[in-house]
Amino acid sequence: MAASNLPLDGDRLWADIMDLAALTEPDRPYTRRSFTPLFLQGRDLVAKRFAEAGLTVRIDAAGNMIGRLEGANPSLGVIAVGSHSDTVPAGGRFDGIAGLATALEVVRALRDQGVRLDHTIEVVDFLAEEPSEYGLSCIGSRGMAGVLEPSMLEMTEPGGETLRTALRRVGGDPDRLAEARRSDIKAFLELHIEQGIVLESQGLDVGIVTSLVGIRRMEIVFEGAADHAGTTPMHLRQDALVAGARTAASVRAIAEQLAGEGQGYFVATVGIFNVEPGASNIVPGRCRLVIDARSTNPVLSARFVEAIEQESAAHAAAVRVRRVPIATLSDSKPVICDETVRAAMHQGARDLGLNSTDLASGAGHDAGFMSRICKSAMVFVPCKGGKSHVPEEWSDREQIAAGAAVILQAVKALDKTLS
Amino acid sequence: MAASNLPLDGDRLWADIMDLAALTEPDRPYTRRSFTPLFLQGRDLVAKRFAEAGLTVRIDAAGNMIGRLEGANPSLGVIAVGSHSDTVPAGGRFDGIAGLATALEVVRALRDQGVRLDHTIEVVDFLAEEPSEYGLSCIGSRGMAGVLEPSMLEMTEPGGETLRTALRRVGGDPDRLAEARRSDIKAFLELHIEQGIVLESQGLDVGIVTSLVGIRRMEIVFEGAADHAGTTPMHLRQDALVAGARTAASVRAIAEQLAGEGQGYFVATVGIFNVEPGASNIVPGRCRLVIDARSTNPVLSARFVEAIEQESAAHAAAVRVRRVPIATLSDSKPVICDETVRAAMHQGARDLGLNSTDLASGAGHDAGFMSRICKSAMVFVPCKGGKSHVPEEWSDREQIAAGAAVILQAVKALDKTLS
Repeated sequence: MAASNLPLDGDRLWADIMDLAALTEPDRPYTRRSFTPLFLQGRDLVAKRFAEAGLTVRIDAAGNMIGRLEGANPSLGVIAVGSHSDTVPAGGRFDGIAGLATALEVVRALRDQGVRLDHTIEVVDFLAEEPSEYGLSCIGSRGMAGVLEPSMLEMTEPGGETLRTALRRVGGDPDRLAEARRSDIKAFLELHIEQGIVLESQGLDVGIVTSLVGIRRMEIVFEGAADHAGTTPMHLRQDALVAGARTAASVRAIAEQLAGEGQGYFVATVGIFNVEPGASNIVPGRCRLVIDARSTNPVLSARFVEAIEQESAAHAAAVRVRRVPIATLSDSKPVICDETVRAAMHQGARDLGLNSTDLASGAGHDAGFMSRICKSAMVFVPCKGGKSHVPEEWSDREQIAAGAAVILQAVKALDKTLS
Repeated sequence: MAASNLPLDGDRLWADIMDLAALTEPDRPYTRRSFTPLFLQGRDLVAKRFAEAGLTVRIDAAGNMIGRLEGANPSLGVIAVGSHSDTVPAGGRFDGIAGLATALEVVRALRDQGVRLDHTIEVVDFLAEEPSEYGLSCIGSRGMAGVLEPSMLEMTEPGGETLRTALRRVGGDPDRLAEARRSDIKAFLELHIEQGIVLESQGLDVGIVTSLVGIRRMEIVFEGAADHAGTTPMHLRQDALVAGARTAASVRAIAEQLAGEGQGYFVATVGIFNVEPGASNIVPGRCRLVIDARSTNPVLSARFVEAIEQESAAHAAAVRVRRVPIATLSDSKPVICDETVRAAMHQGARDLGLNSTDLASGAGHDAGFMSRICKSAMVFVPCKGGKSHVPEEWSDREQIAAGAAVILQAVKALDKTLS
């Protein structure tokens, strides 16, 4: 459908995104890293827009910037909408920003329509959704969900500054973190670019997210013997790379198998593959792989881990190298999105005449942490070529406006149905 | 057999090796890189020992240090024995050095025995057998073989100095390179540590080298798409690492097949395997492999190249990535060692009561270039654990003495039989 038929102002929404995108490291678009002066400059703009939209602005103890408009019946609690304004290094203009600008536009559209919600509405710019220099992501939404642990505040960036100090710099209060935890939020809605090509390849307007994958990162190290590549006969080698290469091939084969079974979303990737000593004339003595496995179904994840455990051990034995015990670098559980909020989103899409589909999110989002404290769901909009976290990241003006309209309709519906 | 029964002085030979080894970068044993002040210090010691053995010492235009003892019948030409005194960075005490000290000991043993050869004998310390900072190896033996091309003199080390200038620094004469080329040498013999574990694993005293492998280096690059590891379903990926891993597995499988056919020595190694961007959460968009394939049989090498060409193309197609045309980084032909010299070596070993075997050399040596201008062959001695180019590189005193005695016997025999 044409953007002009939508119940909000797609051009105004687009302008907000582009205005924020313009605040980038000039030599490395589009970069606005959390905790930097540029990030704070972006937040000044966000605060200004919040205020212009009639929101009262504050920063909570976890460093989230929150714009709030009191509802007609505040005792009903809060409907929150939002995303984040920080970027990865040399990232794009839409990841996070599109969702934050959408939340703002929802408030403005309601005002334009003369609608006052019964629920209080909050627009949230979560602090540091992307992996920060302190080694932690989703800092703000962790805080709001009450799972930003004190030990995490002692994490440091390469220069030695603690997250505790940094949090204070951006207006948070590390000594009162407990106050950031919310129990009054009844629902959370987030729009995000898909970061994949499912919607584009199927010509769909929006994806209603069913669940966010659990992510398991595993490190496998093979230790062999770094021998002369010319003088060591094939049968006397202990070539760590061969075990690593065969394991990478296994990861692909097992992942294709699990993904094809139809029991849930499954992907697995070997993105890091290091070889030592890494000289053309030396048999590799050490090989290190990092596997990233994601699924909406814990059963698939468990089967994957078991299969990799067995196959990597077999590959090591076949070439007489040692497999160090597999290390689990991280392991987050999948998140199921809330049925009520998803139903409101589906209904909104239908009312607007948009094509939608159910979709799993292969990435983590603030909505994942928010689901711990309230009914949460997400709307995905198409993302050109599936490219994200790169300067060419793109979503059309009309595509974002359509997704934003779905959020708007869902907010209005939830305001009536949530007790 | 006991070293004391050998027709030379194993302790004197050992002392020369240890004296040279002591001239090392103190923080990085055992390092005596070609063209460095330490290298020249080593050569001062070599020249001193040459003179003590009654040799006249000179440095030829290609920078080789040569000790010469005129024969009774100089018109018969020269029998040359030698190796090199330079090392790789953080290398061992024996690679090259053991062969050079052996050549010196052969001359001393002949003198001790009161034997004057009919042929003139030369002991050669070839310049820069190991890959030098100028990007070239076997500089001296290339020069003696007449294949040190003028263009090679323009190669530079990281600081910008040309090989031409460096050659002058060590006493060579780049303007008279043609004079380094020899036509009067009738035979060349070289002792070297095996750098492999065939002799050790079979409990043998010496290996008589049948041939030196030809070495082919190939670079394969796969170009896919660097997509989000979470949001890109398995069937929509263009994962360059998967093509690379499967190709590395193919290299191993094909190499094992060819090595097992008994048609000649064959080894192949993937020693370099780079992945970009190399992040755990990004599907690899680029993967680069460098393959090192070595064989004494050009037919096996050709079959290997053809098989890798086909399999890597198939692996690329299977995961929808592009394989850049395979680049040949280098391609040297195998060298067949001289039958006459080898027969003299075998006879020498038998006469000494030593266990010997025929053996292919998986590494290149100065003897490879010398074979272009004269009958050449090599004797290998055992090398503990096959470890070479590392500080723990080791060969026993008796093992080196035994190999040296084989060289001595062969030199004496060849002096009588070579016309």
